[in-house]
Amino acid sequence: MGAGSGGPGRGLVVALETSTRRPTVAARSGGRTLERGLDGERAHASDLLPALGVLLEQLGVDRKALVRVVVGVGPGSLTGMRVGVATALGLVQGSGAEIVGVPSFEAAALRALRSTERADARVQVLCDARGGRFDLAEYERAGDGLRALFEPTSLTLEEAAGRTLRFDGTQVLCDASSRERFAWADGVRSAELAPRATDLIALGAARPAQAPADVEPLYLRAWEGRTRKR
Amino acid sequence: MGAGSGGPGRGLVVALETSTRRPTVAARSGGRTLERGLDGERAHASDLLPALGVLLEQLGVDRKALVRVVVGVGPGSLTGMRVGVATALGLVQGSGAEIVGVPSFEAAALRALRSTERADARVQVLCDARGGRFDLAEYERAGDGLRALFEPTSLTLEEAAGRTLRFDGTQVLCDASSRERFAWADGVRSAELAPRATDLIALGAARPAQAPADVEPLYLRAWEGRTRKR
Repeated sequence: MGAGSGGPGRGLVVALETSTRRPTVAARSGGRTLERGLDGERAHASDLLPALGVLLEQLGVDRKALVRVVVGVGPGSLTGMRVGVATALGLVQGSGAEIVGVPSFEAAALRALRSTERADARVQVLCDARGGRFDLAEYERAGDGLRALFEPTSLTLEEAAGRTLRFDGTQVLCDASSRERFAWADGVRSAELAPRATDLIALGAARPAQAPADVEPLYLRAWEGRTRKR
Repeated sequence: MGAGSGGPGRGLVVALETSTRRPTVAARSGGRTLERGLDGERAHASDLLPALGVLLEQLGVDRKALVRVVVGVGPGSLTGMRVGVATALGLVQGSGAEIVGVPSFEAAALRALRSTERADARVQVLCDARGGRFDLAEYERAGDGLRALFEPTSLTLEEAAGRTLRFDGTQVLCDASSRERFAWADGVRSAELAPRATDLIALGAARPAQAPADVEPLYLRAWEGRTRKR
């Protein structure tokens, strides 16, 4: 129960990504980042922290060294995100660490951007949100990170098709189940690429801490854009 | 950020109860217990910990003094319980405190038992679980606490009616919405009495700490009992 492996620059950062059926946790300490996936179809609250415990053991770092928690806030599974955010809030309340919420779609986009050399690379992320709605966002490279061209938005099939077919860049599906639903769109070329906790750590590093009460799952609204009434 | 208001017997105990539409948090320190209800229809993860923060301020205790978290595990709203359990697990992971999961129905039953003088008092707790299912449990007084006569179980309307009409004791509905659904049962006499975090603290005090991985929302199975096929 000591002061952990403290000292500036050696603080522990952890990330929780629970918006898809492939939840992951990651931990960064002393320049090393480790990640673990959770088994099974559902992200049980009780699975997140044991997985994190294993990572801390592998990193040889005490949880008392925790300085920051980064949590993926979606869009995606509402229950998954609620559990992720609740766990993250508990962690910072218990430890006094900082918290940052990052859209999960940015994690998927960052991974895609890193797999291409093009300086002007652009990425579109899309997910089946059930009930005939589709969540979609677009990003472009900005230094080591990314910039949103189109923030995560809830679209109808018609709206999603319009943006998907027109898009010139890398297209990312958030999970395997989306692959079937997007079969209508030949324009969707890439394999699935679920957001991962490791990428949340990278994205969260550049952002200011938030007030815990401001960290909430991303509840999307319908897009009020031009293609809506076409 | 000192050692809190520590010292043996002065440790901080907190409880989270999120299984109904009336979520509550409670905190006990130095012999005082305070409780706060959360506003609104939904228990947002982001509402639990600010409410807890207010209690700690009122008690004049630092969160570093946290020694135990008691969490209501239902039955009730699945998302509510998942958020409650996730928050509780985050709290203990971040702080190193102990954790105890307590069925939320026991909290409602304890309150009912305390309102009667009868030494042989018995309490039945029932909730509308939607989709034609009803959650029901029965308890009797045991010292300062209670003992389960019938553990929380998922019943059909017919099964619930059978046990409800036959029951001789205090009957508790877990929330106002259940009142309408149980209108069929004249035998249901008491007003609603949502489980409350204060009572979780009392119940949790007498129980051994659990391994965090063992603390999960109570997922009920159908009863295989005698009245089923009548």
